[in-house]
Amino acid sequence: MAGALVDVKPTPILKEELDIVIPTIRNLDFLEMWRPFFEPYHLIIVQDGDPSRTIKVPDGFDYELYNRNDINRILGPKASCISFKDSACRCFGYLVSKKKYIFTIDDDCFVAKDPSGKEINALEQHIKNLLNPSTPLFFNTLYDPYREGADFVRGYPFSLREGVPTAVSHGLWLNIPDYDAPTQLAKPLERNTRFVDAVLTIPKGTLFPMCGMNLAFNRELIGPAMYFGLMGDGQPIGRYDDMWAGWCMKVICDHLGYGVKTGLPYIWHSKASNPFVNLKKEYNGIFWQEELIPFFQSAVLTKECTTVQQCYIELSKQVKAKLGKIDPYFLKLADAMVTWVEAWDELNGKVDVDQQ
Amino acid sequence: MAGALVDVKPTPILKEELDIVIPTIRNLDFLEMWRPFFEPYHLIIVQDGDPSRTIKVPDGFDYELYNRNDINRILGPKASCISFKDSACRCFGYLVSKKKYIFTIDDDCFVAKDPSGKEINALEQHIKNLLNPSTPLFFNTLYDPYREGADFVRGYPFSLREGVPTAVSHGLWLNIPDYDAPTQLAKPLERNTRFVDAVLTIPKGTLFPMCGMNLAFNRELIGPAMYFGLMGDGQPIGRYDDMWAGWCMKVICDHLGYGVKTGLPYIWHSKASNPFVNLKKEYNGIFWQEELIPFFQSAVLTKECTTVQQCYIELSKQVKAKLGKIDPYFLKLADAMVTWVEAWDELNGKVDVDQQ
Repeated sequence: MAGALVDVKPTPILKEELDIVIPTIRNLDFLEMWRPFFEPYHLIIVQDGDPSRTIKVPDGFDYELYNRNDINRILGPKASCISFKDSACRCFGYLVSKKKYIFTIDDDCFVAKDPSGKEINALEQHIKNLLNPSTPLFFNTLYDPYREGADFVRGYPFSLREGVPTAVSHGLWLNIPDYDAPTQLAKPLERNTRFVDAVLTIPKGTLFPMCGMNLAFNRELIGPAMYFGLMGDGQPIGRYDDMWAGWCMKVICDHLGYGVKTGLPYIWHSKASNPFVNLKKEYNGIFWQEELIPFFQSAVLTKECTTVQQCYIELSKQVKAKLGKIDPYFLKLADAMVTWVEAWDELNGKVDVDQQ
Repeated sequence: MAGALVDVKPTPILKEELDIVIPTIRNLDFLEMWRPFFEPYHLIIVQDGDPSRTIKVPDGFDYELYNRNDINRILGPKASCISFKDSACRCFGYLVSKKKYIFTIDDDCFVAKDPSGKEINALEQHIKNLLNPSTPLFFNTLYDPYREGADFVRGYPFSLREGVPTAVSHGLWLNIPDYDAPTQLAKPLERNTRFVDAVLTIPKGTLFPMCGMNLAFNRELIGPAMYFGLMGDGQPIGRYDDMWAGWCMKVICDHLGYGVKTGLPYIWHSKASNPFVNLKKEYNGIFWQEELIPFFQSAVLTKECTTVQQCYIELSKQVKAKLGKIDPYFLKLADAMVTWVEAWDELNGKVDVDQQ
């Protein structure tokens, strides 16, 4: 009676297969709270802003740190695709990692507690999410069917119960919710106190707002699609880096048959960013997203696109052709998407995209 | 600062606008536990099986009761579309109701408790779900954005924040999960103990397994699509009544722009039905659903279908044309779908479908 047994398999920690990517402009004191969970792992720190500043990392952590000078040196002219003065720079860490999995977290995110008061090992939950399949083709009303104590419910087709490989695990935030500037301004006191004990697959064909604050992914499956765009310094937009990556990534996952999960784990998001500053960054995006969403909802990739790189290049062409008319920014972004893939292949030893 | 205020509006109880539909073959002692929540409402009891049996209803409840003789008398030859010896007969209650909303519940479902130990007023939560909009066009990672303490997250298009009218509220079950016979047999001891504090919209284009155990809907919006099919006595299938209704309903809601929610409220499902008996009922369905799901996933309704009735008749034609080859049962079912709509219009004073 296998079904009656409690699952006692420990979650593999994937110590040698996962990098933690942290974009920052300050000393990483926040790591102290994460020490019991993060210390076994290698950190890739992407220092944003003034490269002459020294970022202090608490003793005992294994890390490599890249500032803007490093990025420029390593990528040469292709460094233009990496944003400056915006947490979008984090994707440089995805590029230089050699591991199969990435977990990325913001430096204002702390360890959350579950309703029983126990500290949540967010990384362990992300690893569970990534190692178990996803179910994008049919919704399971008891949420993740692979979790202990759950399964597929009556009426769930048996042919779909193997699921598909999971590419992305999107975690949530207690305390400060990830609101846009208008909502921050309208609800300054709102805090997220609701612990929803669920992981679910975002269905195929459905887009969602992917937040980069607490995010893990399978770099081998989807890495080249996790480009966080052109944001911040010299760009007409900020705070849409993760959204952009999420929309591109989801279209490609749907095309290639990979799954995207959201829900657990929670982190504790400690402080709200300034809504006035945010409004300035988001202003254009608030208009543009009204056209971006229909664009991504109707984007179709041809069956000739069989690798993430091919999908991403194809998507960049559609961005250029269909979004360029919104603003010349999208022409620049489309070019940067191509540069990103070229940089990816250069650093990751792939053959030329056209030859794949 | 409206956003900082706690929502103190009481949920309307819709006493005059909602019927509770209960299919049963036994005395309704289970109502005692629901008394504080159900007593203000009118009950429609659909007695299945032997019509000469007397069903006892606890004192104090306002109800009408229909047995098979009543169904035959009221519907005449059209009574053939109402199943016998299967809880699918519950949809007769939807037909004879004159109210805007329906809540239907099985007689082995009891009041569940939330994690704080408080008894859950399932009906009140369903009413909240139905009175608040749905968000089928884009997924919100903090789940129901209309709930207190939640909102739309960053990156959610503002043009979609009004949502769409909610047609269906699908509630869940603690204790005995709604598993099919093979899963029941494989996991005899599994109990659902996980209280997931969320309500979410099933995205447009996504199908799910709708369980009829704890279900509410807006009869005015979607009633004619809530036909529970031909099941039980004389039919080659059982336990797919709610699934069938759910698939038809979801395709039509997607077409007409209505929302479907799942999640809260939980009820306490007291006992598992016999898995051997269930296997016999489900046997054909387990094969057939492998073809039904792709059928419903690809079903397209023309823009000429602007009423639920028109959509449903169109769907019945597609069932006949495309599913008839699986088994002659589907030809019979397609005819019953038409009969159901005719019966609906007859009892609900609608003009002929062709004249709409």
